[in-house]
Amino acid sequence: MVPLGGLGEIGKNMLALEYGDDIIVIDAGIMFPEEDMLGVDLVLPDISYLLERQDKVRAILITHGHEDHTGGLPFVLRQLKVPVYAPRLAHGLIEVKLREHRGLRDSELHQATPGEPLQFGAFEVTFFRVCHSIPDAMGLAIRTPLGTVVHTGDFKIDHTPVDGLPTDFTHLGELAAEGVLLLLSDSTYAEHAGYTPSEMVVSDALDRIIGDAPGRVIVATFASLISRVQQVIDAAHRHNRLVAVLGRSMVENVKMAQRMGYLKAPEGILHPWDEIRSFPPSEVVVVTTGTQGEPTSGLVRVSNRTHRDIEVLAGDTIVISATPIPGNEVLISRTIDNLLRQGAQVLHGGNALVHVHGHAAQEELKLVLRMTRPRFFVPVHGEYRHLIAHAGLARDMGVEEENVFVLEDGHVLELGAEEGSVVDRFPCGHVFVDGRRIWPADSPMFRERQTLATQGLVLVVLSVDGANSHHPLKLVASGFLDGEEHEELLARGAQAIDDALNAADSRDWEAVEKTAQKTLARFLYNETRRRPAIRVLAVEE
Amino acid sequence: MVPLGGLGEIGKNMLALEYGDDIIVIDAGIMFPEEDMLGVDLVLPDISYLLERQDKVRAILITHGHEDHTGGLPFVLRQLKVPVYAPRLAHGLIEVKLREHRGLRDSELHQATPGEPLQFGAFEVTFFRVCHSIPDAMGLAIRTPLGTVVHTGDFKIDHTPVDGLPTDFTHLGELAAEGVLLLLSDSTYAEHAGYTPSEMVVSDALDRIIGDAPGRVIVATFASLISRVQQVIDAAHRHNRLVAVLGRSMVENVKMAQRMGYLKAPEGILHPWDEIRSFPPSEVVVVTTGTQGEPTSGLVRVSNRTHRDIEVLAGDTIVISATPIPGNEVLISRTIDNLLRQGAQVLHGGNALVHVHGHAAQEELKLVLRMTRPRFFVPVHGEYRHLIAHAGLARDMGVEEENVFVLEDGHVLELGAEEGSVVDRFPCGHVFVDGRRIWPADSPMFRERQTLATQGLVLVVLSVDGANSHHPLKLVASGFLDGEEHEELLARGAQAIDDALNAADSRDWEAVEKTAQKTLARFLYNETRRRPAIRVLAVEE
Repeated sequence: MVPLGGLGEIGKNMLALEYGDDIIVIDAGIMFPEEDMLGVDLVLPDISYLLERQDKVRAILITHGHEDHTGGLPFVLRQLKVPVYAPRLAHGLIEVKLREHRGLRDSELHQATPGEPLQFGAFEVTFFRVCHSIPDAMGLAIRTPLGTVVHTGDFKIDHTPVDGLPTDFTHLGELAAEGVLLLLSDSTYAEHAGYTPSEMVVSDALDRIIGDAPGRVIVATFASLISRVQQVIDAAHRHNRLVAVLGRSMVENVKMAQRMGYLKAPEGILHPWDEIRSFPPSEVVVVTTGTQGEPTSGLVRVSNRTHRDIEVLAGDTIVISATPIPGNEVLISRTIDNLLRQGAQVLHGGNALVHVHGHAAQEELKLVLRMTRPRFFVPVHGEYRHLIAHAGLARDMGVEEENVFVLEDGHVLELGAEEGSVVDRFPCGHVFVDGRRIWPADSPMFRERQTLATQGLVLVVLSVDGANSHHPLKLVASGFLDGEEHEELLARGAQAIDDALNAADSRDWEAVEKTAQKTLARFLYNETRRRPAIRVLAVEE
Repeated sequence: MVPLGGLGEIGKNMLALEYGDDIIVIDAGIMFPEEDMLGVDLVLPDISYLLERQDKVRAILITHGHEDHTGGLPFVLRQLKVPVYAPRLAHGLIEVKLREHRGLRDSELHQATPGEPLQFGAFEVTFFRVCHSIPDAMGLAIRTPLGTVVHTGDFKIDHTPVDGLPTDFTHLGELAAEGVLLLLSDSTYAEHAGYTPSEMVVSDALDRIIGDAPGRVIVATFASLISRVQQVIDAAHRHNRLVAVLGRSMVENVKMAQRMGYLKAPEGILHPWDEIRSFPPSEVVVVTTGTQGEPTSGLVRVSNRTHRDIEVLAGDTIVISATPIPGNEVLISRTIDNLLRQGAQVLHGGNALVHVHGHAAQEELKLVLRMTRPRFFVPVHGEYRHLIAHAGLARDMGVEEENVFVLEDGHVLELGAEEGSVVDRFPCGHVFVDGRRIWPADSPMFRERQTLATQGLVLVVLSVDGANSHHPLKLVASGFLDGEEHEELLARGAQAIDDALNAADSRDWEAVEKTAQKTLARFLYNETRRRPAIRVLAVEE
């Protein structure tokens, strides 16, 4: 394998580059559970591939501080003792997270400075600036013995970003001049034609909204979207309003961003809510979270009238400055309705230009493909259909059909200087975090929960007497029926089991269990058209 | 109340007009359950208001055949014996549905013909044609002693509809000339600027797609969207392809629409799939369901490779001709990804113009407001924020602020010739259908299911011996833990309960139950950070 480099997708937003005895890992993502992953808090990638090659892994490189790129670290670092390199803001956020998980002392965290090369075995890595919806986002230029690999990280091209630090085209141009072996590029918005607008557009809208609002303005956005908070503060300042930040995660992020210099608030503009709650509404702006309809977030509590500190006043203008993450549409819609019911005006992506997202659209993706002219192309970040769309763009831009690879979790791509191919797919299921435990994604428990959730459970307690005959002692149901008919139905179910057991007259426990189970299932389906989970257990008399 | 008419929102897509001793009901809608309504099949409006006034109810008028306007009928007609009037196609669909529910013999179903007035007590009702995403959709012109009420039904303005029957502006104009007391108008797309495009746009796109496709074309759409099926058949005909319809609901609807003359297929173009499955792919078009990612639909089975009759071939072009209903985005996205993985090209609303929806956008809504110039306005159909947006349009168009009423379920609006007000809100919760049973929406069973779904259940069987002392006989868990640690944890839990019961030494069953419950809850939370439901039951020894 000497002249070949390998690229493996470990999981969502986590991949590994391997050359000879060296492996570097890019990002350590996490997924949020889907609807049918009942009771699951987080979804983690399965890192067995890396664990089996522990002594080759030189570093984990983090491109930016978003949860879906860093959230796996506390779990990964428990098993894999390797140094982590991250841009300054991401470094700060990771520190906070590792401290929460009590993993900070054991880990080796480094700040990565853009433009300063780092050597990891055969890999020389240089971070370079890109624009994204969090400050200090980076792409990676990775020199390998086979050629240069460019990873864009999550990015868009914004010539007028809020923090004044645009995507570093000079560096990209230099790399392009050397020749690029492989480009890995953000695909999230590869289905969108045109350009993603600059943050400037949102500044203008917020300025107009805050300037025109007759009463309070409440802006909800992502806690990590520091640049949006900056825009709100700037607009509030221009219109002589004071700003209060509400919600634990938002308050902490704003503090850290101020301390590290990513957020610049004019003297005296930020106040605790308690100090300005009695001010005239027209002098106040509130910033909080809740754009995704999350039940415990600030905005959702306000919409439900369950917020401890704040309630909607007639004349409030509420701005939801985010786009719905797929799957959250219904919760968001419910939140908007509840705010409107209390007399607020609500502005959101559907009726105002109060958000632009952080990913490059087709014309930007083409520009990066044109600049780098890579031999090989691998679309990263996004659903499968976004990868397919991005692969199509790369072919349109002249990358050879056979050099474009759409990879899925576990795929191993082997590259030479001239050609490459997917050589392996290692098992790479996800694992679920539920409370303190980590489960394999195919645990039968999740199927069981699905039945419990939609049909409920009936438990049959059978007595086993000395002569080894059986009769139903008790039927208990949960999540299945309620009300009067409940008891009557279960009593008839018990009778049906008794009759069936007497008729079968079996001494073998497995046969008894099966008869009881089947009889009750049939009885309940006939009566209710439902199939609750049924468990049978024996109690010795 | 003599000079006043009343309008009551009974539930989603169901409202009543009342004048003196007469009530007419418009539509009998149904809602589909939301994510947190675990195991619920359907959500029905609570019709107590009508049941208490049974002998006043003259008729139920149905505007069109969509499920969300007719689906409540089988349940409503069981309790309320009144005649139903519906346009011809809706009449056909309702017949099928009532037959399924074995309610056809007891019900009195009439066809409503556009332009022919019907008298119901004080109300004279004339159905008039509107365009919507099902043929034979109607609005209602209702003459009352107070003035004329116009209800648009679900509508859009399409000057070039597929069935050649545009919205009846002549009739609307006549009504407008007489003066309109109250306008009730469709609000679903009231947040969308501009005009909804004509179905013609989709005809053009389908024609191009089917003409250019190298292999098979599979088109998924709503089973009730007969006009879309017509467009597919027309395009297939032009390009010399045969058409197969797959899926029970789609096959039945197509048959009925053909029989009733709503679908016109050239001789010999429609074939059962078995007859044309061996034809060259470039000569075949398949029509099926599954645009919303429904697990049992044709397209989703194909995407999962679990369809009995058909699988994806490389070179297939798959068209998803619908927009996502909010809440279904994730399922749809998964379906698209699975189809792409098998090598199909997938066209959908996100990357092609393969669907236009059936509701009027702002400019159309304004046109209707301008034509009818109503004294009173009530926005109907849509989420609360759509009603609010439509109310804003009405005020912009000159309806007096105090004459615009945004109603919610249970609201009673009383109108005179000059002024109106909301005078009451009767209790009007929803009821859930789960299997054969109907539940109140606030049944504790649903909270129980939520716990079961996310945390699971642990059942404690306690023995009660003669001396009335207790000890844990068995702990059984469901949906809580699995694997080895399971047994060990439950054994320690049993020990903890035993210790606690011995320490408390109580004889009172309620106290014993409570101790067992609390002890186990605390133990499990400490060990797992989860709070499963806990049930304790006694078995006498």
